[in-house]
Amino acid sequence: MAKPLYVLILAGGSGERFWPLSRKSRPKQLLSLFSQETLLEATLRRLDGLVPANQILILTNADQESSVRALCPSLPKENIIAEPAKRDTAAAIALGAGWIAQRMPDATMIVLPADHVIKDTASFQRTLRVAAAAAEETGELVTIGIKPTWACPGFGYIEQGAPLQLADGPAGPPVFEVVRFREKPNAELAESFLAQGHFRWNAGMFIWTIRSILSAFQRHAPELGEFISRLHAGEDFAAALRNHFPQLPKISIDYAIMEKATRVLVVEAAFDWDDVGGWAAVAKYLKCDDAGNHGNCDVKMIDATNNIVFTSEPRTVALLGVSDLIVVQTPDAILVCNRHEAEKIKQLVAMVPPELQ
Amino acid sequence: MAKPLYVLILAGGSGERFWPLSRKSRPKQLLSLFSQETLLEATLRRLDGLVPANQILILTNADQESSVRALCPSLPKENIIAEPAKRDTAAAIALGAGWIAQRMPDATMIVLPADHVIKDTASFQRTLRVAAAAAEETGELVTIGIKPTWACPGFGYIEQGAPLQLADGPAGPPVFEVVRFREKPNAELAESFLAQGHFRWNAGMFIWTIRSILSAFQRHAPELGEFISRLHAGEDFAAALRNHFPQLPKISIDYAIMEKATRVLVVEAAFDWDDVGGWAAVAKYLKCDDAGNHGNCDVKMIDATNNIVFTSEPRTVALLGVSDLIVVQTPDAILVCNRHEAEKIKQLVAMVPPELQ
Repeated sequence: MAKPLYVLILAGGSGERFWPLSRKSRPKQLLSLFSQETLLEATLRRLDGLVPANQILILTNADQESSVRALCPSLPKENIIAEPAKRDTAAAIALGAGWIAQRMPDATMIVLPADHVIKDTASFQRTLRVAAAAAEETGELVTIGIKPTWACPGFGYIEQGAPLQLADGPAGPPVFEVVRFREKPNAELAESFLAQGHFRWNAGMFIWTIRSILSAFQRHAPELGEFISRLHAGEDFAAALRNHFPQLPKISIDYAIMEKATRVLVVEAAFDWDDVGGWAAVAKYLKCDDAGNHGNCDVKMIDATNNIVFTSEPRTVALLGVSDLIVVQTPDAILVCNRHEAEKIKQLVAMVPPELQ
Repeated sequence: MAKPLYVLILAGGSGERFWPLSRKSRPKQLLSLFSQETLLEATLRRLDGLVPANQILILTNADQESSVRALCPSLPKENIIAEPAKRDTAAAIALGAGWIAQRMPDATMIVLPADHVIKDTASFQRTLRVAAAAAEETGELVTIGIKPTWACPGFGYIEQGAPLQLADGPAGPPVFEVVRFREKPNAELAESFLAQGHFRWNAGMFIWTIRSILSAFQRHAPELGEFISRLHAGEDFAAALRNHFPQLPKISIDYAIMEKATRVLVVEAAFDWDDVGGWAAVAKYLKCDDAGNHGNCDVKMIDATNNIVFTSEPRTVALLGVSDLIVVQTPDAILVCNRHEAEKIKQLVAMVPPELQ
């Protein structure tokens, strides 16, 4: 019989790539980029019918806590936690695992980023059910693999091995052994991954039983394992969060656990997926004209090609004789950026007054 | 003894070149481009001590009338007139001449644009006094010539002839005969004008006695001359404005009078002068960095050169990897324009919603 599912949503990202729309207090997951709904709300909505609200934990930070609480009224108050320090994904997941272990040590845990775009909710849930069944049947760590649509050098990759036949479980996408995790490749290697056909994007979604992840932490990252064990044993959660969490090692779950685990499984995502990595990725959700200009507002153009225009308030934006620009308006700041240099937006953010960061 | 001076300020321009800051109801002369003062207010201020407020007439249009009245509280109500139709400068000057003729047929009339930047008020007034003295002594039409600082193809030119020794008059800049008026030259001809040294920019400033301009209109533009004569003879001004003015020929004062007059004099401007023809011309009044970027606000930049940034409200504007742009923010519209294509802004204005024009 299936174990109870708990979901940890990691919602503490900083989202500088969407500046000036994003701010420290309003990162990507709290933005409504192409609908009325924020990405965090959409992430919660996709869990409707899969996991009850009281089995969903959101980790955020102090800057964003009040916004997150306002957006997620269906969650019990104690299911939204602001991390007192930024400790990367391994510590965040250890904290989430400890929180779940205090409630239901026999649970299966799903870890999800808060800021991805996935439209096909039914396939998303079907994929997670298969992953949970695989995690429960095998006791292994399970991840979701996204089939690459292009040779993106910006993602970590999962090299997929032999398919695995589960004895029992729901109908859905196939499960494979993971040969190994590969860090972000250079452009050439990314092309090779794409051509070989059995590499998948690592989307940062994980599924495992609480027992399995505790055991993996104890083996590969003992300090984090100890942190979970003490919570499991009944240590006061608020005190652990306040006193011990800020001292935990700052390391990603990929480095701390996934790359070291002896056996990991990957379920092929049966759903559409987009991590919307920056303004250029938003373009495809906006209106487009024949000259490749995208906008979410009233844009008037002469001799303009391949521009992206986004305003946070209703505005007319006029473009004249310009190409390949990202133009973003907010009530207090305006960005005009060459779309081929958008990765430097982070540097710009460091230059603006603190209240605009 | 010097005749009383009356000034006609032509303040009916549309100023599309400063869109989106400028609108039909707020053209260039009503903008505060680089100080708290609008260009119209500065024009009025430059007349302090030269002409009393009740001898200054401002011609504007219905769209701008209320703004003009609000900016010029020192003028009697009847000294601000909204033209009921756009009839170009010859008709506007005829209207102004008629208005003055009804009050003081023996006056000397000065015609000034409302939207130029002149900082040296003392030299400006000295130049006008010399021009008025020349107009009164000779009975000729007098204009002001601006010494070109570069081979601008965007202005009409005045070819300056022999110097004229006035019998009597205030100390100030020299007076010359005008050989002829030259229309806007091509780039090559403009270079030649600059090299020859005796060509001057026609800045649209004129000085003449009411008798002289009436006589010139009667000879070269009889329909306009008749219009002035009837006002001079006592026709009701409001009725003439409403009924006859809209029927007057639409022609510039240069075509109608100046190019046809047998003898015109030119006084060399002893003052600085800038017509601030568009955003690029505003740049030199704004803060500038080492990479040629100009701005009136908080501008943060990476890899940005030679840009102009103007916001109508306090804003941070971030530029990344862009060059030669004009970026203008207003509460309801934003312009991002290649500075080498700024002459097309007029076409853009025609494309935006009427309330933004």
